[in-house]
Amino acid sequence: MSDVGVWLVGARGNIATTAMVGAKAIARGETDTTGMVSARRPVSRLDMPDVSDLAFGGHDIRTGSVPEDARRLAEENGMPHPSTVEAVADDLADVDDHVHVGTALNCGESVEALSNAELLEEDRTVAEIVERIRDDVDSFRRAEGLDRVVMVNVASSEPPVENPDDYATREAFESAVEGDDRDLPASSLYAYVALSEGHPYANFTPSAGSSLGGLRQLAREEGVPHMGNDGKTGESLVKAALGPMFAGRNLRVMSWEGHNILGNTDGQVLEDERNKAGKIESKGDILDGILDDDFHNRVRIDYTPSLDDWKTAWDYIHFEGFLDTEMKMQFTWEGSDSALAAPLALDLVRLLSNADERGESGLQTHLASFFKAPLDVDEHDLARQFTWLYDYVDRNAGEETPDGVTAETPTDD
Amino acid sequence: MSDVGVWLVGARGNIATTAMVGAKAIARGETDTTGMVSARRPVSRLDMPDVSDLAFGGHDIRTGSVPEDARRLAEENGMPHPSTVEAVADDLADVDDHVHVGTALNCGESVEALSNAELLEEDRTVAEIVERIRDDVDSFRRAEGLDRVVMVNVASSEPPVENPDDYATREAFESAVEGDDRDLPASSLYAYVALSEGHPYANFTPSAGSSLGGLRQLAREEGVPHMGNDGKTGESLVKAALGPMFAGRNLRVMSWEGHNILGNTDGQVLEDERNKAGKIESKGDILDGILDDDFHNRVRIDYTPSLDDWKTAWDYIHFEGFLDTEMKMQFTWEGSDSALAAPLALDLVRLLSNADERGESGLQTHLASFFKAPLDVDEHDLARQFTWLYDYVDRNAGEETPDGVTAETPTDD
Amino acid sequence: MSDVGVWLVGARGNIATTAMVGAKAIARGETDTTGMVSARRPVSRLDMPDVSDLAFGGHDIRTGSVPEDARRLAEENGMPHPSTVEAVADDLADVDDHVHVGTALNCGESVEALSNAELLEEDRTVAEIVERIRDDVDSFRRAEGLDRVVMVNVASSEPPVENPDDYATREAFESAVEGDDRDLPASSLYAYVALSEGHPYANFTPSAGSSLGGLRQLAREEGVPHMGNDGKTGESLVKAALGPMFAGRNLRVMSWEGHNILGNTDGQVLEDERNKAGKIESKGDILDGILDDDFHNRVRIDYTPSLDDWKTAWDYIHFEGFLDTEMKMQFTWEGSDSALAAPLALDLVRLLSNADERGESGLQTHLASFFKAPLDVDEHDLARQFTWLYDYVDRNAGEETPDGVTAETPTDD
Amino acid sequence: MSDVGVWLVGARGNIATTAMVGAKAIARGETDTTGMVSARRPVSRLDMPDVSDLAFGGHDIRTGSVPEDARRLAEENGMPHPSTVEAVADDLADVDDHVHVGTALNCGESVEALSNAELLEEDRTVAEIVERIRDDVDSFRRAEGLDRVVMVNVASSEPPVENPDDYATREAFESAVEGDDRDLPASSLYAYVALSEGHPYANFTPSAGSSLGGLRQLAREEGVPHMGNDGKTGESLVKAALGPMFAGRNLRVMSWEGHNILGNTDGQVLEDERNKAGKIESKGDILDGILDDDFHNRVRIDYTPSLDDWKTAWDYIHFEGFLDTEMKMQFTWEGSDSALAAPLALDLVRLLSNADERGESGLQTHLASFFKAPLDVDEHDLARQFTWLYDYVDRNAGEETPDGVTAETPTDD
Repeated sequence: MSDVGVWLVGARGNIATTAMVGAKAIARGETDTTGMVSARRPVSRLDMPDVSDLAFGGHDIRTGSVPEDARRLAEENGMPHPSTVEAVADDLADVDDHVHVGTALNCGESVEALSNAELLEEDRTVAEIVERIRDDVDSFRRAEGLDRVVMVNVASSEPPVENPDDYATREAFESAVEGDDRDLPASSLYAYVALSEGHPYANFTPSAGSSLGGLRQLAREEGVPHMGNDGKTGESLVKAALGPMFAGRNLRVMSWEGHNILGNTDGQVLEDERNKAGKIESKGDILDGILDDDFHNRVRIDYTPSLDDWKTAWDYIHFEGFLDTEMKMQFTWEGSDSALAAPLALDLVRLLSNADERGESGLQTHLASFFKAPLDVDEHDLARQFTWLYDYVDRNAGEETPDGVTAETPTDD
Repeated sequence: MSDVGVWLVGARGNIATTAMVGAKAIARGETDTTGMVSARRPVSRLDMPDVSDLAFGGHDIRTGSVPEDARRLAEENGMPHPSTVEAVADDLADVDDHVHVGTALNCGESVEALSNAELLEEDRTVAEIVERIRDDVDSFRRAEGLDRVVMVNVASSEPPVENPDDYATREAFESAVEGDDRDLPASSLYAYVALSEGHPYANFTPSAGSSLGGLRQLAREEGVPHMGNDGKTGESLVKAALGPMFAGRNLRVMSWEGHNILGNTDGQVLEDERNKAGKIESKGDILDGILDDDFHNRVRIDYTPSLDDWKTAWDYIHFEGFLDTEMKMQFTWEGSDSALAAPLALDLVRLLSNADERGESGLQTHLASFFKAPLDVDEHDLARQFTWLYDYVDRNAGEETPDGVTAETPTDD
Repeated sequence: MSDVGVWLVGARGNIATTAMVGAKAIARGETDTTGMVSARRPVSRLDMPDVSDLAFGGHDIRTGSVPEDARRLAEENGMPHPSTVEAVADDLADVDDHVHVGTALNCGESVEALSNAELLEEDRTVAEIVERIRDDVDSFRRAEGLDRVVMVNVASSEPPVENPDDYATREAFESAVEGDDRDLPASSLYAYVALSEGHPYANFTPSAGSSLGGLRQLAREEGVPHMGNDGKTGESLVKAALGPMFAGRNLRVMSWEGHNILGNTDGQVLEDERNKAGKIESKGDILDGILDDDFHNRVRIDYTPSLDDWKTAWDYIHFEGFLDTEMKMQFTWEGSDSALAAPLALDLVRLLSNADERGESGLQTHLASFFKAPLDVDEHDLARQFTWLYDYVDRNAGEETPDGVTAETPTDD
Repeated sequence: MSDVGVWLVGARGNIATTAMVGAKAIARGETDTTGMVSARRPVSRLDMPDVSDLAFGGHDIRTGSVPEDARRLAEENGMPHPSTVEAVADDLADVDDHVHVGTALNCGESVEALSNAELLEEDRTVAEIVERIRDDVDSFRRAEGLDRVVMVNVASSEPPVENPDDYATREAFESAVEGDDRDLPASSLYAYVALSEGHPYANFTPSAGSSLGGLRQLAREEGVPHMGNDGKTGESLVKAALGPMFAGRNLRVMSWEGHNILGNTDGQVLEDERNKAGKIESKGDILDGILDDDFHNRVRIDYTPSLDDWKTAWDYIHFEGFLDTEMKMQFTWEGSDSALAAPLALDLVRLLSNADERGESGLQTHLASFFKAPLDVDEHDLARQFTWLYDYVDRNAGEETPDGVTAETPTDD
């Protein structure tokens, strides 16, 4: 396996910080790979880079220090454990050289307000921003001697792009960059750099990222694998697992109310109705793909500062069964958003790296289970999405590793 | 399609009563088929008897009147709706001729205490009990001019059989019947009659039913389709849908606490620890088949009279994710047990009838999704069980019915 | 005890309908007084009119029939029971003569949209509207030969009055009426009629009602007892009971999230942000009066049509204890709003009738426990509010009724 | 204020450890007094010893080290915070000199199994055990130069005493001690030492403690204040707050199901049905004192190891309102048992110290709000119990402290 680097857009955020702490803690034997889909059969059968060997870099709109980001997260949130952070603090400090200030172009005022630095767009054209991002990524690749870099967007949600059709072709997108079209969203500029450099790309947010037509075309033409949008980590995951149960039993859902509260930066940014729009849409659509169209389907996302990173959801499902009998199911989910998301971000790096090595290109729809709004995928049944992934593994894994000789952690079998 | 009769063991209980009210109400256009798996694509593609055309009869340990049973259920439970009961009261009265007092042999004291009648075992040998059951079923078949009878056990849970290996062969079972072995459980005597008469059999309870080795052999030799055990209607259904989500995401469940409260006869009988034993076991095993072995897995079932038929469950799932982060999911389920179970009992009748007509015999493992403890099946992942059923339908359904010309209810597509 | 009539503003709504069905059902022995505070010790010690003897009339903005209103409610909602409605249908039909079309002045577009009739304001000045209301109430009083009428506002929530200070004195209010000030809200016109006629008044809604300064002055000067605002029936009741527990134990609430979903007309009207404003405020203020100021306190009210009258709330309380330990409490409340509110409306009638007979006048602050935003009361601790009521009873009840000879229902002791 | 010492029975358990960490952390300014009732108005008006000044000692059945106990608790439980433990580790080490191995006489096999030391009863008569306990407490008092020692029992629950009437008088109790009656429970031997030495005593457990008639007599005769039983910390607290709400509104509770799960030593000991008996009884009785007798009232306590000290409860309340309408309330409570209990133990020390200084003696019933089964108290309404405490403070507090000059923490006003 070649040397692989991870480029995190939003490198000082909770998900990125957790991913880095986790990878380093696994490398040092401080924790195991629980929570990583790629560390468990059958996915672990693929020939992927070891989590322990990944190098990290990225962009953010804040300056700071990765070890301090981790300490703050541990302090406010109780996750990761402070002793784990200290065990890997030196490793994290090494990452700092590769974390640069990036762009918040069209990320909305709420995101911009988080910045404590001079953003790239302040004195640059769009083309210059792109070049600067490209330089940063390339310096990382060269400094670390990497064969391959995978970019993952774990930044805050942007407002939806108003005219996505303006960027429907590669030519249109590239003309917009050259013509200093300042309606282009930051996430797509990053994705453009990744894909045009041949780096696999995953979009863990509902932002535009690589979903614009021009970037999809670019990925196909350049033979680069990519996938998005919006990591499926908590309430949405449960919806995707439970929805098919109601459908399969011919129970008629009348109302599915979902109320999410969270207190991290993500929650703060989603206070802004514009940024929230994309998020709500990708959460709501999951059920529409599974259940009949005509039910009451509401998703609320509210900001509750005291919860920090602990995303809590209450879902109330009012359904009708035999003889018009009305029944109810409720659930609450209390999860650390970063602890749920970070291992999936690492999974995507490992899976895209493997795909890239095997010459796959374009949308990786077999990764649908990782996303709330998987690009080009209408199927939202979690079990079917898992089956796609497992079938993909069956097709692409090499010989079965004999039991007991795997190099992975004990959760691996 | 030929004329099909349903023989309900436990014919005065809530599930049986609900099934009869529902079938008659569908026939009269008072309700639709919501809640019936067989009324929804893809299962509805099979050539099955119409629910509206089914004839009903059965055994119980109580005397009474089916319309009165239905009125009592509506009054105590709010389900079915009183106006629906009245709309079909005459139809229900017609069933009364075919509901006979049966046996509670080895059903435990709690069950016996429910009886208000002279049970068959009071002055008969086991062989005589069997003959009487056989006569009752046969009179029904002849009186209604039926081509086929499907027996479904919806009676209360029996205590586990102490020495099931004593009945491991057909010969051993039949010798026991002839030898007046009074350790034989009622459920297996009913199953014996069904299978030896060539009638398909489904066991919706955790009782022994057709699961004894001797009866399985009989079913194979006589070419009769059958399946069990224990209908999967509420909390267990949710477990089977949610468990694979945790497994698929490599989230380590540390504890899964399930607390069920219910107030119907089933709940009352389960107050008896002996009767509860089988139930707890079939509920608990679902997760063991999905998650790793070493977690804390408790199921409580308590009797709460005021709830009547409304089975309420609270499940608390304590799990660990990335970086040893502890997280929680809780759900509560409030379902009318009878409204959930009755349509599945009708589904099984329709599916077994179709199987019988096509010459299937022995265990019908593709029906695993209907059962908590499907015989000979280790797979408890609900989605995979659904897939088996759908694949079976694909293999055995005739030509696709053109859209819009189905004779079923509107929920059918 | 003299003959007492109840004048319901919003007489075709769910609360009014339930109150009338309940009173008539109690009179006919079809149900008992469960849910009525005044039917239970110690409040039942006061000399109040029997529920069974109350006469009913009122205004609404819809035409219709009280028995039909009741049947529709039973059908959609399962409450009251259909057989109870039928048992009192004739009694309800007698009320129809005294239910008139009233006014929706400044009730907002959402309320107006519910009307199917020509409202009083369509061709009348404010003074003429008032006269018409006065005539309707007076005809009722005379027709039924009543000694006393108590008016209760159970109509939908109005938007807050923009300039309440314009009506701070009796003179200002009356000048506004005479000057055809069309900013006056319907609820206050009704309250004006009641108070100026000497009829006690209770405002079960967050609308202005009798809370304007001019109307309070009028009540004092005319010696009429009145109280409001906004009946405390569900989630708010629980908050008022639980909040003091956290305070008394010095547990620091960091966040209290309340999410209400409901599907009745009230919910539909509250979809309108303007109508919702007053409701949210009175719900939120309860905790502010009990806990320290600086916590996150959000109340959401959403419209979920399938729930009809079943108001469901999820509250999530995030609090801190010793050694900065973060802990959580959650509750869900599933109540029939009308079944909770209607008995309290009847309680208020009985209590205000008793107060009026004993010559009380002005705000009845000892009734604070009935209201979310009790006028002139800062104390929101439910237990203290109950104590005020019980102390009031102690002061004003006659001799203790000897045990066993009460004329009330069995729940009365 | 004189120098006050705290003698903890169960000194190595979670509650004792948390109390000591908390007191020391408050002394060092590492945390505040959140969670302490005595640190909040109005109770803080009493002249009580500062938490910061308390000295600690105690008995346990395990050997060990207090700082290590604290580290283990922090590690397993996340509470207290590891950095807090380290900040006070030296202070905790100083306590070790005063923690001695005690007795587990009649504590049941589950408790004995926890011991890793030679218990006092192994080679001593009961009288000798008592003398040894007396010596240990007295050495502490002299070594620390204390004016006053308050003993608090925070050990595991004992099985109920079989023949409490055998110890109904002081003489009977003392004869039993002298006669080596080995049926005497450990908790009462400790209480005997405390009371006979003139040390106030609080029993935070459901064990017998000072509740035996003979010990009550002793306390009265010797003029020593004492109180118990069983600290009211979580689910029971909520019941005591919510129960009166249902009663006050004349809502008829039909069923109140309470299901507690916990994973600490307390939970482990309660796996033993004998030890559980007393606990269940004191939890269940709370509602019986508030609601009518004839409802279904079940309390379950189950051991769920992964939860450690996090006591989680689900309560389901099925109640009936107006027009026989069935409604439901559910709550879940997730609290760190030790973080809830420890500040109350410190409160009791401060309050009993103040009472002792003012010459109070016998049962301190105004402390009822602290206990699930307050001795000699039938009132379980939490608000009324709070009122008793506040009234007591009003009677016994000195001059009002002028605002702003209190020496207490900021939560104090």
